[in-house]
Amino acid sequence: MFVTFEGVDGAGKSTLISAIAERLRAEGQSVLIAREPGDGEFGLAIREMLLERHVCPEAELFLFLADRSEHVRNTVAPALSRGTTVLCDRYGDSTVVYQGYARGFDIELLKRLNHLATQGLVPDRTFLLDVDPAIAAQRGTKGDRLDRESSNFHQLVRNGFLSLAREEPHRFVLLDASKPPDELLHEALNAWPA
Amino acid sequence: MFVTFEGVDGAGKSTLISAIAERLRAEGQSVLIAREPGDGEFGLAIREMLLERHVCPEAELFLFLADRSEHVRNTVAPALSRGTTVLCDRYGDSTVVYQGYARGFDIELLKRLNHLATQGLVPDRTFLLDVDPAIAAQRGTKGDRLDRESSNFHQLVRNGFLSLAREEPHRFVLLDASKPPDELLHEALNAWPA
Repeated sequence: MFVTFEGVDGAGKSTLISAIAERLRAEGQSVLIAREPGDGEFGLAIREMLLERHVCPEAELFLFLADRSEHVRNTVAPALSRGTTVLCDRYGDSTVVYQGYARGFDIELLKRLNHLATQGLVPDRTFLLDVDPAIAAQRGTKGDRLDRESSNFHQLVRNGFLSLAREEPHRFVLLDASKPPDELLHEALNAWPA
Repeated sequence: MFVTFEGVDGAGKSTLISAIAERLRAEGQSVLIAREPGDGEFGLAIREMLLERHVCPEAELFLFLADRSEHVRNTVAPALSRGTTVLCDRYGDSTVVYQGYARGFDIELLKRLNHLATQGLVPDRTFLLDVDPAIAAQRGTKGDRLDRESSNFHQLVRNGFLSLAREEPHRFVLLDASKPPDELLHEALNAWPA
């Protein structure tokens, strides 16, 4: 089972992921918590490049895709093939939204590049934690790269995620991230893929 | 003036580039010698990732494109805009040939990605140093990443470069790299873009 979590920084993705992992492990399931970008040694090197340097939008895009290519092959796919449930904090949808809806790269091209990077691996379920960007900003990590973007940028991101969720209603589950964590956990488990 | 040099490792690109740079500088021209991948601080970090790790072909492709995106913006374009002639050892054609003709990625997609990475910056002239891969292998750096590829791979690379040269006869100048260096220098200067 491959489940991804999308939404702006500060929406509560990692809190929800931890809570779900705890619950599934208590039931005896094998669970891997993953994230993009920056899982593993290669991912950390990429993450450092992204955080430390002011790379141009094109290089940023290609670094995310390089990270995803290695992450799927070396981490996600091997875990799935041994029967482990993978909970991934951000995946291809983040690229379509941040680089496409927000930065203006061609959305169909980004989907094609995601397909290339992931060799077509699509999540069984994607939880979108939707929240007003202004509220998320209060919770999110201060001073990081995305935090410095304009409020218009964050609005484009929110709308982009909502568009993707409407396009693929069978994969996406929309969660109102302003709700308390235990309620979000309950809703996520109710919508868990069979 | 933006001039690129393509061909397999060991074809003699850097020898020719040095000789041309020396000649142009003697005429009082400002010349920058550049290379892909791995120019500058960002490029070196990418080059290290490529050489030290066995990244998958998709990650390799995206790292080359990230490198090119930064290289064009931070090195090539600024030099060109201040009137410096840029001599670049490998550029977009290498990606089309190695990742496309040799590794099998979609060639039209690669051209589109090059266009994205370079913001459409096309060389004024490209010198293709063509040589039998078996001869180049004797001259090339031993034990590097590409050196370990099969002879079929190197043949695909050679044919790929020749195909690109046929497609764009006004940009490409084909040089027989088995000729002595001073003859190659003479031929290159004779075909120098006006």
